[in-house]
Amino acid sequence: MATVIDGKAVAQTIRSEITDEVRLLSEKYGKVPGLAVVIVGNRQDSESYVRTKRKACADLGIKNFDIDLPEQISEAEVIKHVHQLNADPNVHGILVQLPLPKHINEEKVLTEISLEKDVDGFHPLNIGKLAMKGRDPLFVPCTPKACLELLSRSGVSIKGKRAVVVGRSNIVGLPVSLLLLKADATVTIAHSHTSQPEDIIREADIVIAAARQAKMIKGSWIKPGAAVIDVGTNSVDDPTRKAGYRLVGDVDFEEASKVAGWITPVPGGVGPMTVTMLLKNTLESAKRSIEQN
Amino acid sequence: MATVIDGKAVAQTIRSEITDEVRLLSEKYGKVPGLAVVIVGNRQDSESYVRTKRKACADLGIKNFDIDLPEQISEAEVIKHVHQLNADPNVHGILVQLPLPKHINEEKVLTEISLEKDVDGFHPLNIGKLAMKGRDPLFVPCTPKACLELLSRSGVSIKGKRAVVVGRSNIVGLPVSLLLLKADATVTIAHSHTSQPEDIIREADIVIAAARQAKMIKGSWIKPGAAVIDVGTNSVDDPTRKAGYRLVGDVDFEEASKVAGWITPVPGGVGPMTVTMLLKNTLESAKRSIEQN
Repeated sequence: MATVIDGKAVAQTIRSEITDEVRLLSEKYGKVPGLAVVIVGNRQDSESYVRTKRKACADLGIKNFDIDLPEQISEAEVIKHVHQLNADPNVHGILVQLPLPKHINEEKVLTEISLEKDVDGFHPLNIGKLAMKGRDPLFVPCTPKACLELLSRSGVSIKGKRAVVVGRSNIVGLPVSLLLLKADATVTIAHSHTSQPEDIIREADIVIAAARQAKMIKGSWIKPGAAVIDVGTNSVDDPTRKAGYRLVGDVDFEEASKVAGWITPVPGGVGPMTVTMLLKNTLESAKRSIEQN
Repeated sequence: MATVIDGKAVAQTIRSEITDEVRLLSEKYGKVPGLAVVIVGNRQDSESYVRTKRKACADLGIKNFDIDLPEQISEAEVIKHVHQLNADPNVHGILVQLPLPKHINEEKVLTEISLEKDVDGFHPLNIGKLAMKGRDPLFVPCTPKACLELLSRSGVSIKGKRAVVVGRSNIVGLPVSLLLLKADATVTIAHSHTSQPEDIIREADIVIAAARQAKMIKGSWIKPGAAVIDVGTNSVDDPTRKAGYRLVGDVDFEEASKVAGWITPVPGGVGPMTVTMLLKNTLESAKRSIEQN
């Protein structure tokens, strides 16, 4: 039976490390990290994500800058707010909650965020540096960073291992592939055009599942002893639950946990780690800024 | 027996296409593409590469801007020249021949080249856009672009195929992997930490060899019918040659050509294509600039 990687517990450990560092910064410089979370409109799911992020900040002593903007706001106005946050020395990270309303060009808004405050790590310049040997990005995107933290804190080595990433999105699959490559894994990127992904996954010592397809990866696809990190969060109907649905990953956990060496559950695996990595990026940004001045 | 892909012939075809387009530009706008090749010092190999590039420009009607700088020049002076070229509307591409003398920081000089004239395509912002879905780089790096051109002009389809790239350098392995991924191949990147690369290469429909190791890839490693693009140019001793050496690729051509479906020779495969792609990037840059004004 696989060791189940407890993402909640690892996140808790890292959060208390961050809390300590925030306290040290405050004592030494009289300053704390600041994160601005920008939300436009009233999508329920976005509001819930933003609440989670803001609460996590407050819990750890990171200062919140709440920018709540109305649905009808113009693109130019949103960009103006971003510029104000860029100029504010107490703001070390800026996060614009996506999706934005349809009349606003997301790419345009995101590229206005100062590189030094792009705690999401999605700026193409950042991704380029993530890809290139000998270059280091200012920020590693949160979910990919979470995957690697879960591996390293579980004692799974990466160097020289076969890693297969299923999915190639800009926010998970692609950057996690680049990170694994930087860590000297032999990396294969599988996606919707890959025929017989099971043959490829069966050779992997490390599987990162980020395909957004409920339980697509079966237990028989997993190499015995492999480490399986499941980034999927798919909701499936479940009349036995009050909500009428439950969340499942891209991996069939019940089957795969009998074969794998390590596996993350859904929920309670990568999920709790992602926001934690956002806080860690904000801390790192604050340290760069405060210690330089 | 494999079809031998004649890089010289393909390059010739593309060069005549470029010549036609240069003539059209000249007739329609009275302007031609311009490429500045900057060389610092007197390294023999660099001087030979630069001569090749300048001659190719002249042959195709592309205007040369020769910037030949002395070995002792300061970094600041080199950057000044780059800025002058950035500002010159008749220069559409800037190439700084590497390596630069040790007292000059290459990365610093290269990042000063205007993005719109970075015909080598090595700027991290360009690489980031090459990596990201939905984004397009202004320029695709020359050797990776050459590999894909050779495949497509040989009728080898990429979508859904298994591709293995051996090597992960910033100038070949990494960007060609990203290009293949964008073309919907299932991509594996193997490198010096990969154990038993033969097992991985044997599964590949497309092999890109960019490991800089003479004949490391044997015939028995190749899947029957695979397309093999050999980027390696390694010199090995050969007393029967006047020069005392000859060039061989990363693939054992004699063995592999009996198994593969397509294969590029060394020399005469990727080599003649790389400079051609530089000229093509310069043409594309000129078209963007001239047609916008």
